[in-house]
Amino acid sequence: MKKVNIAIMGFGIVGGGTYDILTGNYKMIADSTGFGINVKRVLDLDTQKIIDKGIAKEVATKNFEDIVNDPDISVVVETMGGVEPARGFILRCLEAGKSVVTANKELLAKHWAELKSAETDSARIFFEASCAGGIPIIRTLEQGMQANNITQIMGIINGTTNFILDKMSEEGLSYSDALKIAQDLGYAEANPAADVEGYDAMYKLSILSSLAFGKHIPYTGICREGIDKISARDIAEGKAMGYTLKLLGIAQNSDGKIEARVNPAFVPDKHPLAGVRGAFNAVYLKGDYVGDIMLYGSGAGAHPTGSAIVSDVIVAIGMRGKKAKKKVSKGEPKFNYNYSSKYYFSITAEDKAGSLAKVTALLGKCGVSLASLVQKEVTNGQAYISFLTHCTYEQSMQKAIGEITKLDCVSSVESLIRVI
Amino acid sequence: MKKVNIAIMGFGIVGGGTYDILTGNYKMIADSTGFGINVKRVLDLDTQKIIDKGIAKEVATKNFEDIVNDPDISVVVETMGGVEPARGFILRCLEAGKSVVTANKELLAKHWAELKSAETDSARIFFEASCAGGIPIIRTLEQGMQANNITQIMGIINGTTNFILDKMSEEGLSYSDALKIAQDLGYAEANPAADVEGYDAMYKLSILSSLAFGKHIPYTGICREGIDKISARDIAEGKAMGYTLKLLGIAQNSDGKIEARVNPAFVPDKHPLAGVRGAFNAVYLKGDYVGDIMLYGSGAGAHPTGSAIVSDVIVAIGMRGKKAKKKVSKGEPKFNYNYSSKYYFSITAEDKAGSLAKVTALLGKCGVSLASLVQKEVTNGQAYISFLTHCTYEQSMQKAIGEITKLDCVSSVESLIRVI
Repeated sequence: MKKVNIAIMGFGIVGGGTYDILTGNYKMIADSTGFGINVKRVLDLDTQKIIDKGIAKEVATKNFEDIVNDPDISVVVETMGGVEPARGFILRCLEAGKSVVTANKELLAKHWAELKSAETDSARIFFEASCAGGIPIIRTLEQGMQANNITQIMGIINGTTNFILDKMSEEGLSYSDALKIAQDLGYAEANPAADVEGYDAMYKLSILSSLAFGKHIPYTGICREGIDKISARDIAEGKAMGYTLKLLGIAQNSDGKIEARVNPAFVPDKHPLAGVRGAFNAVYLKGDYVGDIMLYGSGAGAHPTGSAIVSDVIVAIGMRGKKAKKKVSKGEPKFNYNYSSKYYFSITAEDKAGSLAKVTALLGKCGVSLASLVQKEVTNGQAYISFLTHCTYEQSMQKAIGEITKLDCVSSVESLIRVI
Repeated sequence: MKKVNIAIMGFGIVGGGTYDILTGNYKMIADSTGFGINVKRVLDLDTQKIIDKGIAKEVATKNFEDIVNDPDISVVVETMGGVEPARGFILRCLEAGKSVVTANKELLAKHWAELKSAETDSARIFFEASCAGGIPIIRTLEQGMQANNITQIMGIINGTTNFILDKMSEEGLSYSDALKIAQDLGYAEANPAADVEGYDAMYKLSILSSLAFGKHIPYTGICREGIDKISARDIAEGKAMGYTLKLLGIAQNSDGKIEARVNPAFVPDKHPLAGVRGAFNAVYLKGDYVGDIMLYGSGAGAHPTGSAIVSDVIVAIGMRGKKAKKKVSKGEPKFNYNYSSKYYFSITAEDKAGSLAKVTALLGKCGVSLASLVQKEVTNGQAYISFLTHCTYEQSMQKAIGEITKLDCVSSVESLIRVI
């Protein structure tokens, strides 16, 4: 049987998981593909970590030149993370005629055009593992949905925040208590900003929407809001109305105008995304003919992510020498920031005659139409009032909230959460 | 731009839907693939139906020879359904060097070996549309999961029965009332046996499990039980325990022993399959490295199914002249019919001292361990008792039910439903 040599750069969680699969399922993969995949080199600054895994000493290296200059290595897996030196290494691998498989969403989102234009027919970049871990969403967008114009993506594409929101919802915890548990369990990092402020989801949404819409959607055009301002009360109020709170990446293509945002959103309990629990991920797509499709699975972890990497390695090997098609066109997309949504918001206001009238009058003036409102409790002469609007424009809603904040009778606007 | 000629055989719902997509998204597909797909021939006994759709008269034909003998036609879509003449037509197309795209699960399940062995490098058979409509499950099994041994499939793969069970669950309807609604809405046929007795799901499970396990799983080895014996009471009792009733196709590969069955099953409300509503489909997979994956979407209908067909047509065109790999090995699988499951069952019994003791003694004797039981009401001296078991073997459970039926104090065994 033919052997194909590959290299792995970065031997952390995902690099190690990839190695596990390539060795653990070596025979099964060889039987189904017709070639044996041999890991000829593993690059890491800590070569001891590689050797401790039982890998031969001559496989381990600290020196990238050992990989890029080796003509026997035809595919390189990049699992280092971060922008540099990953970017430089990948560009040099492509230049050397080696295809690259990467899980690096930040790098892809930040240097999409450069990386895509460095591809050649014999050296391409594959990135199934960059979004939603083991879920085959990239392949589905590129191949399974070819008959369709994708008009919308909605995804739970960050497991850390889904875990935190799920804990808050199930156990009534505060955001900071739930974050603490996520950190203790290793789901969240000591500095959780990349996850909880929505950066990670934003990078992934840039990649997914670029493939879905056949046009590069730069992450700089994506509106971003994290979950760090969400209170236990918001979640409880949503629950009472039949909603589950999720951090969603939403991208929509309406006649060529792109709406792209990452924000917390109330999802109706009966919607399939509402049932996505714990650290799981799911991506919901709308195609013009296929209708609604959802893919669900583990969004992170050594083996789910490694599984996506290995499936890309197999494709990369199979495609060597075949002409590549560039499916994502150039040119800047037109963004639509004044999108339409339903909104939930809550305020505390003086509990006296006329307060509510002033707020609802303002909403009417701004063109915001109410679907329902609930006045809940009175503490120290203050009432907590929550509102659900009909579909309204983002700018109308922001204007209304701005004016409501200024009302004397309103102590504070407690929350503003979009509803799908 | 290069044009590729195809033919459609059978111009019913799915054939028409396929034509809609090929014409409606012609330009988008041509832009992304690099070739224009031209429908050169449409075959149907009722050619007027074709012409009424605005298709040129010279495209319509009743004569299969017009297609098979036309060297310009390289891919043929079969959307006639049924075994003959579809089988004969497909074999002749393959023999003539034309790839075939089909949605025909019954034909595939019944003639798998014959059809697969008729494939050549230049003429292959594609069948994404045969299982779960627009959901790209075949592609996911063949490509997205290549790094994994798939150990389990659980699927809601028949939309009609899911619609009926959902109606029963949501509105407390009887089976026959829910079936009537499904028939009125066109979800169920006048003779609903193929759906409600589980034949359709059985054919699909044969196809899916053959791909998942890399070995042909003949439908004749699949245990089959429909939903026609399910009562509103079963569903209500399940609901009270936190379960939703679904008709599942379940296939499991444990060390080469195959368990394959289609049966109603109680699914815990928090399981992603429980939330699959109406006529939607979903397939849940377990891979040894990727963990749990679920794909959800429309399982039937002109456009979702057409979408899968068109994506196969695109692949079929792209693969012309490329060497095909046969991934499904030969040889008979070993079936395991004495699988292990949790069970729910209910009986009516005389409401007097000792009845329950006799039943539980029998269960113990047969090795069935109880997780819980509920005695509900007394009518005419009869009690309705429902039981939930721990994991037990199918044969032990069947033996216990057989013996319980014979007890004098037991009027009848009302239901026996597996629990996942």
